[in-house]
Amino acid sequence: MKWSFKVARIAGIDVNVHATFGLIVAVGALEWSGRHGAQGALFGAALMLALFACVALHELGHSLVARRFGLTVREILLLPIGGVAMLVGRPERPLHELLIALAGPAVNVALAAALLLVNGVLGFLPGLTELGAASGPSLQTALLWLLGANMALAVFNMIPALPLDGGRVLRAGLSMAVGPARATSAAAAIGQVIAVALFAFALISGHLVLAFISLLVFLGASQERATERARTILGDVPAGRAYNRRAIALSPCDRVNDAAEHILTTYQTDFAVMLEGEPIGVLTRADVIRALAEGAGSAYVAGLMRREVVRVGADRSLDEVARLMSEKSTPVVAVYDGERYLGLISHEDMAEALTLLQFLPAPRQGGAASQAAPRAQWT
Amino acid sequence: MKWSFKVARIAGIDVNVHATFGLIVAVGALEWSGRHGAQGALFGAALMLALFACVALHELGHSLVARRFGLTVREILLLPIGGVAMLVGRPERPLHELLIALAGPAVNVALAAALLLVNGVLGFLPGLTELGAASGPSLQTALLWLLGANMALAVFNMIPALPLDGGRVLRAGLSMAVGPARATSAAAAIGQVIAVALFAFALISGHLVLAFISLLVFLGASQERATERARTILGDVPAGRAYNRRAIALSPCDRVNDAAEHILTTYQTDFAVMLEGEPIGVLTRADVIRALAEGAGSAYVAGLMRREVVRVGADRSLDEVARLMSEKSTPVVAVYDGERYLGLISHEDMAEALTLLQFLPAPRQGGAASQAAPRAQWT
Repeated sequence: MKWSFKVARIAGIDVNVHATFGLIVAVGALEWSGRHGAQGALFGAALMLALFACVALHELGHSLVARRFGLTVREILLLPIGGVAMLVGRPERPLHELLIALAGPAVNVALAAALLLVNGVLGFLPGLTELGAASGPSLQTALLWLLGANMALAVFNMIPALPLDGGRVLRAGLSMAVGPARATSAAAAIGQVIAVALFAFALISGHLVLAFISLLVFLGASQERATERARTILGDVPAGRAYNRRAIALSPCDRVNDAAEHILTTYQTDFAVMLEGEPIGVLTRADVIRALAEGAGSAYVAGLMRREVVRVGADRSLDEVARLMSEKSTPVVAVYDGERYLGLISHEDMAEALTLLQFLPAPRQGGAASQAAPRAQWT
Repeated sequence: MKWSFKVARIAGIDVNVHATFGLIVAVGALEWSGRHGAQGALFGAALMLALFACVALHELGHSLVARRFGLTVREILLLPIGGVAMLVGRPERPLHELLIALAGPAVNVALAAALLLVNGVLGFLPGLTELGAASGPSLQTALLWLLGANMALAVFNMIPALPLDGGRVLRAGLSMAVGPARATSAAAAIGQVIAVALFAFALISGHLVLAFISLLVFLGASQERATERARTILGDVPAGRAYNRRAIALSPCDRVNDAAEHILTTYQTDFAVMLEGEPIGVLTRADVIRALAEGAGSAYVAGLMRREVVRVGADRSLDEVARLMSEKSTPVVAVYDGERYLGLISHEDMAEALTLLQFLPAPRQGGAASQAAPRAQWT
């Protein structure tokens, strides 16, 4: 993600922190500096860092179990409002989704148990009742506070409101009974009702952060619903139905300016670079604009094109193609009928397909790849 | 604008109110209900309505003078944070811009003068000093409050921070000396410095609304700069350089589904509907999606196309084309070389041209319309 930088790499997974993360550390420092001055500020900042270490471990829980089930973990990202494990692909079976979702809160339960033990051994536990207002910066305060925080993380994340972990557990459970589409729809609806209730509670009790989080839960639930809907629509349609026909292709010896000229004077935005009938690279609008901005307008296309051409069969579903694009971090794939190159599909084409396909009749002929180009009159 | 509804029509100009406008009335009611109960709430709501009547008159001042100088006034829109006169086109001369900008605050000055007179005649003026905390709902409070409000509106709007009226006056003045491009750049920079200062003052003094407005001023200044830059870039380029070549055209007897099929399987999004070599209508992606959503996929294109085809000469500048699109509220224009139809230009093409043209060399041949289509290889 933009504006984030790497702070650790655990078990081969990058832990990145967003630039705005400093905010939450500052909030922690401010909260403790009022009563306890500079020492309090340091203590508050350290508490926040410790809390987010627990959040990172929570996300690591999700990530390791997800990887165990064959998903790719792109990164763990820490934001001021929490953490995200960026997973590519989706669990094959509802049971896998359930276990991945449970792994996060389970980490916090384990941490809470460990902290309970340590606090008990050190004789800190009796302090738990008066934790808060009066307690100053001390090891006891820190250990008790982290115990409470991990318990809160486990409980809050298990609220059955998609996209929280509890919501994923709920969806996975429903999935086993009624299939993923209806399960998502139900879990999203429940999530939104809970989000509205949380929002109302947050407004009444003046918890602004909770109000913000409940807003995110609400929007997240919509997003999950839209994603599942996209999967349903795109899962039915072969890539051979949505690649771009009648495309202009570039030669490796064309200049970036030539590609820019095509973008300006046609509807086309992405170009296969062809050599002897085979695509050897891809040049997108973003590549062209970047090159132009760097003054490389007269450079050869061959030097600037993306040299990895991701191939997909025309009979693969658009949903599979979308997942492949995400896994390979490529904005464009090349569609093939066996060994014959057909054309490109980009992110934009995917969005267009999603909008149109829900309304369009199924392809008129059997094999998508063999479908004739639509009748067209040229001006 | 979406989510707005008409409340009046003055001198042929629609005055529309945005749906969120109720917020500011509610804020007024809340502010006065605390001390003065239900009667105070009514009074506070009435005060806000009276204030926004003054704001509407301010915008009407801009609008009438703008119309006098040949600009089109699309609407006056009232938002919770103020009013906007939506003008199409731009003043021919800096003096016109100056007079249009001054007309708004001049209305508030005139209203303030009238209120001063009325308050004086009614013997209300001595109350001005203790207006505020203690004064209850009364005619005196209302008339004095509105006097103060109009004075504040005049003064605030004359702050020389683009896009406020004072900033426009500043730009118009600078324009006479150094031309519009450098004048806009300087006025925008001054506007942003003032916005930052206002924002800092708002944070320190706790004026959240002022903080929000200063943010809008900052963004507005960037926007003005970008608009002026677009004018400079697009003003130099003829429409003949940016229309779409190699386009698929529809026949009036094609179905909406055919157009959808083209959108799905090519890069094209807008279609001229041709009859005997002449475009008789235009069908855009938005039209197609709307028709599909209404279940009209098998309808004839002839029944759904936009029948008004806005024509522009290939030698007109893209800036003129953009203005024409805005005036005619059309997303697509047809480019002609004399009586010969060449192709379409859409809003999206305009944005693409803006991004690319700053980097591209000038056309290789004199007449834009006679320029050869770029060399291309077809797959």
